[in-house]
Amino acid sequence: LDYQHVQVPFEITLWIMLASLAKIGFHLYNKLPSVVPESCLLIFVGLIMGGIIYGLNDKSPPVMDSDIFFLYLLPPIVLDAGYFMPSRPFFENIGTILLYAVVGTIWNVFGIGFSLYGICQVKAFRLQDVSLLHNLLFGSLIAAVDPVAVLAVFEEIHVNEKLHILVFGESLLNDAVTVVLYKLFRSFCEMSTIKSVDIFVGVGKFFVVGLGGVLVGLTFGLTAAFTTRFTKDIRVIEPLFVFLYSYLSYLTAEMFHLSGIVAIIACAMGMKRYVEANISLKSHTTVKYFMKMWSSVSDTLIFIFLGVSTIGENHEWNWPYICFTVIFCLIWRALGVLVLTFFVNRFHVNTITSKDQFIIAYGGLRGAICFSLVFLLPDFHRKKLFIAATTVVILFTVFVQGMTIRPLVDLLAVKRERESAPTVGEQIHIRFLDHLLAGIEDISGHWGQYYWKDKLEYFNSKYLQKILLREYDQPKSSIVLLYEKLERKHAIELAEAGQLGHAPSHPSLLRSGFLCSNNNRTAITDKKLEDTLNPDVLENIQQILARNLYRIRRTGPAYNRHTLPGEAEPVEHAEEILILRHKSL
Amino acid sequence: LDYQHVQVPFEITLWIMLASLAKIGFHLYNKLPSVVPESCLLIFVGLIMGGIIYGLNDKSPPVMDSDIFFLYLLPPIVLDAGYFMPSRPFFENIGTILLYAVVGTIWNVFGIGFSLYGICQVKAFRLQDVSLLHNLLFGSLIAAVDPVAVLAVFEEIHVNEKLHILVFGESLLNDAVTVVLYKLFRSFCEMSTIKSVDIFVGVGKFFVVGLGGVLVGLTFGLTAAFTTRFTKDIRVIEPLFVFLYSYLSYLTAEMFHLSGIVAIIACAMGMKRYVEANISLKSHTTVKYFMKMWSSVSDTLIFIFLGVSTIGENHEWNWPYICFTVIFCLIWRALGVLVLTFFVNRFHVNTITSKDQFIIAYGGLRGAICFSLVFLLPDFHRKKLFIAATTVVILFTVFVQGMTIRPLVDLLAVKRERESAPTVGEQIHIRFLDHLLAGIEDISGHWGQYYWKDKLEYFNSKYLQKILLREYDQPKSSIVLLYEKLERKHAIELAEAGQLGHAPSHPSLLRSGFLCSNNNRTAITDKKLEDTLNPDVLENIQQILARNLYRIRRTGPAYNRHTLPGEAEPVEHAEEILILRHKSL
Repeated sequence: LDYQHVQVPFEITLWIMLASLAKIGFHLYNKLPSVVPESCLLIFVGLIMGGIIYGLNDKSPPVMDSDIFFLYLLPPIVLDAGYFMPSRPFFENIGTILLYAVVGTIWNVFGIGFSLYGICQVKAFRLQDVSLLHNLLFGSLIAAVDPVAVLAVFEEIHVNEKLHILVFGESLLNDAVTVVLYKLFRSFCEMSTIKSVDIFVGVGKFFVVGLGGVLVGLTFGLTAAFTTRFTKDIRVIEPLFVFLYSYLSYLTAEMFHLSGIVAIIACAMGMKRYVEANISLKSHTTVKYFMKMWSSVSDTLIFIFLGVSTIGENHEWNWPYICFTVIFCLIWRALGVLVLTFFVNRFHVNTITSKDQFIIAYGGLRGAICFSLVFLLPDFHRKKLFIAATTVVILFTVFVQGMTIRPLVDLLAVKRERESAPTVGEQIHIRFLDHLLAGIEDISGHWGQYYWKDKLEYFNSKYLQKILLREYDQPKSSIVLLYEKLERKHAIELAEAGQLGHAPSHPSLLRSGFLCSNNNRTAITDKKLEDTLNPDVLENIQQILARNLYRIRRTGPAYNRHTLPGEAEPVEHAEEILILRHKSL
Repeated sequence: LDYQHVQVPFEITLWIMLASLAKIGFHLYNKLPSVVPESCLLIFVGLIMGGIIYGLNDKSPPVMDSDIFFLYLLPPIVLDAGYFMPSRPFFENIGTILLYAVVGTIWNVFGIGFSLYGICQVKAFRLQDVSLLHNLLFGSLIAAVDPVAVLAVFEEIHVNEKLHILVFGESLLNDAVTVVLYKLFRSFCEMSTIKSVDIFVGVGKFFVVGLGGVLVGLTFGLTAAFTTRFTKDIRVIEPLFVFLYSYLSYLTAEMFHLSGIVAIIACAMGMKRYVEANISLKSHTTVKYFMKMWSSVSDTLIFIFLGVSTIGENHEWNWPYICFTVIFCLIWRALGVLVLTFFVNRFHVNTITSKDQFIIAYGGLRGAICFSLVFLLPDFHRKKLFIAATTVVILFTVFVQGMTIRPLVDLLAVKRERESAPTVGEQIHIRFLDHLLAGIEDISGHWGQYYWKDKLEYFNSKYLQKILLREYDQPKSSIVLLYEKLERKHAIELAEAGQLGHAPSHPSLLRSGFLCSNNNRTAITDKKLEDTLNPDVLENIQQILARNLYRIRRTGPAYNRHTLPGEAEPVEHAEEILILRHKSL
């Protein structure tokens, strides 16, 4: 027996296997996941595992390594989140999200830090040796809402898209703030004197870390898109580039102390539409599927490790400090959301209701990021207290808040996500309104989001697409290809039977429009049809439809980690095509 | 800048990126890969990279770590090979393959070892300090044909399936022999006296290592199939199990000093048909695609690292020894193939022609396995000579033999693989003959391959399938689902129009048979049809077709690493279905 030799891969494989089997186990009983969120169950499994290890070895089980977490477990989840991010609601609410992420997080950090410092002054608690700076450092790591925990809970409760994107977007973008504040306070802790210039440098770093991350991400994203232009002859490695470039963007950002999370999201969002257009349909399925799979496994492992790491002797149980931490986390977040939303609502027509505000405040879950950061703290005598407090906050938010948020959403009758994807008609109207509003903004000289969106779209179609897309080979679903073949055969048959020259029926016209929705090129192959109609009218119709409909295949229902968007769609479309075809015969 | 922190994943990602970009680069110019095999180009890239590293650092570039090779780079390639192994030609020629793999390899080891020992006795070469045991040890690592190198070359030259499977199967199965002989001689080298009992133990180990590997592989494979029965509610992690279990089988086999390669192949071949039936179509696409991608990247990395490792000062250039190694490798392989084939041909009707024999002997390429094994040798004063000789043999076989084998195949007009997949008619005939031969063997009391195949198939359908398959949810291609829906709609329409009761036309009968080929259940849903025909006749037809055709979707063209088998098939089938449907209206 030579266990030493295979130990590392063997143990990694076994952990992943345990995680996957645990996931299967939960889903065998349908009722369990509908009551208790999966994250809670996984932490529970972790606790049991940790207990077993502790019982057998009589020493604390290994804690989750911060490096493993930040370098290997976090990126797949963030990549998945960025790649499947519904970009429209995200950019529509970007202002609000940034306000919550930046101002809200700072508010929480200082709020929690100063109030805990206040608690430390109470002599009865014996905490007078915890300095203000240490409290602020602790605040900086405990304040940030965790994307992994938020995703795990929110994808199960299916609130409406805006509410989801507000909480989830905040949890992603606050990374830049957390990184800066955490590193700032940590270096302050090690400095003897703090000059005021250091504080200004800290403020400047916000922008560097955040915008630097975006820049790194976009650079890698566009390079990835450019690379996939040349993979036509070697389809099998196409999916690889999506993963390689996004991971490189994360690592590069981390290397320069920028926000890796922001970088990978910018990379994923930047490359998505070009890569999708360049790579084959099968490659795309693989990319989507593997991303989901990978993030799902990472997420499972994180929660199991959280559970395992909780067991042991790393904690100092000073209950007043711990309890006040939980209370302050709740209070300051609630206050922050209230105040910020008050300002947000003054500038928006579509306001955030008080129910929504409650869910936003209540959905501020903490997770593995805090946990990894607290272990990364430099050694000092109260580190174990911070670890204990962080553990309790995480378990409290994941278990208590995570398990009660679904009944609360039901009780408050919060607006839920719509069941079905928007119809073609709705899509057309949304697009039409966008153009209209862009025009109005242009005329009124107001540079709003529609104006910028329009400019960006222009820039994209004029320059970016030409550089990044391999246009002559756009992906077609196999159904469309099949349809094209049949269409060609049918045309030959008609020609042989001498039946050409008839005006096309209404259904075949509809059909040509319908095909546009799948691919704006198909209609062009339908030459006969074009010749019989007035070309100008037809071109107009086609242009309108093509512009408005060409992305329908890409628009799925709201974000959910366990399903792939638009799964059943092509079949339904094709079915409709074939039924129309049927009738026209 | 914090490079230390991200170094490991960053450098791994960069190497993979380099490998992928190199692959794209070669395929940009279509003429290059058609003349020079990709493996040669990749080694060339590696040589350049090694030269650059050597030039910059002025010390030998890092050699490929044997652990990395055996634990991380080799398994994906072998898994891919096993999963896409065409099982019919493999099992038809299993006797010949085993003969080549076991007897042939032993023949080569002792032939090369003893003749090199003879060379060492020539005083002028100054090699008298290399003992017989060391020569045999060297022979045991240099004798084995390498699956990675064989795959890389043979998938580009497209010889006929039998020839391919003979060389490729040998290269896979000789792993057990190589492992045993290599470890045996290595331990003999460290022993002071060798007892005759040690030699008998060594012979017994062959069977333990080989059959143990098969057992471990099958156990994990069937467990994997059983696990996928329960993944219905959580489709995204289905592909994971294929990879996890097969990797575990490899690691477990390695842990017990069994043949990991044999284990992973047994695992892949054992689980394939059950896993395929259990998991969703999209999961299956992901599995296939990712396996291809992964093995393609591993393969690329191996050849690049081979190139990099060649540069440096690890070599002792004793040219007589090196040249004679190359010559003996060629001679003993040629002799071995000639002798073994002579015996094989006496027992087979379908003989191996002399052209085929030449290609089998010439296709005995050496590769990264030898290279990794030679670095794993215990340190002794002539290790650098063995490294040099191994490097030259690998480069010679990959460059000279690899580049000339294609022109030679053309020149000798070796039978090539057939371009298209077998037709439905051929499939039926093959199946029919199988049953016939099984019957003949049964009657004549001869327990041949057909008899065992029939028994295995019976055992499979009687027991294994019931345990391992989630039968109520067999995968259907989306086209079949679509067709079913349309069929149902059509039936409703007909019923509404009062047109039911007509006898089905010839095409619709054909159609029902045709659907059987995609899925033997579909026909059963077509209730109307059944009622109108004589049920007995119909059942007979259906049974015959179902038994003979139900695996057509799984039978692809010959093995090729860069394409996925059966890619375009479903569309073609469906097209035919729809055309028939069309005519019947």
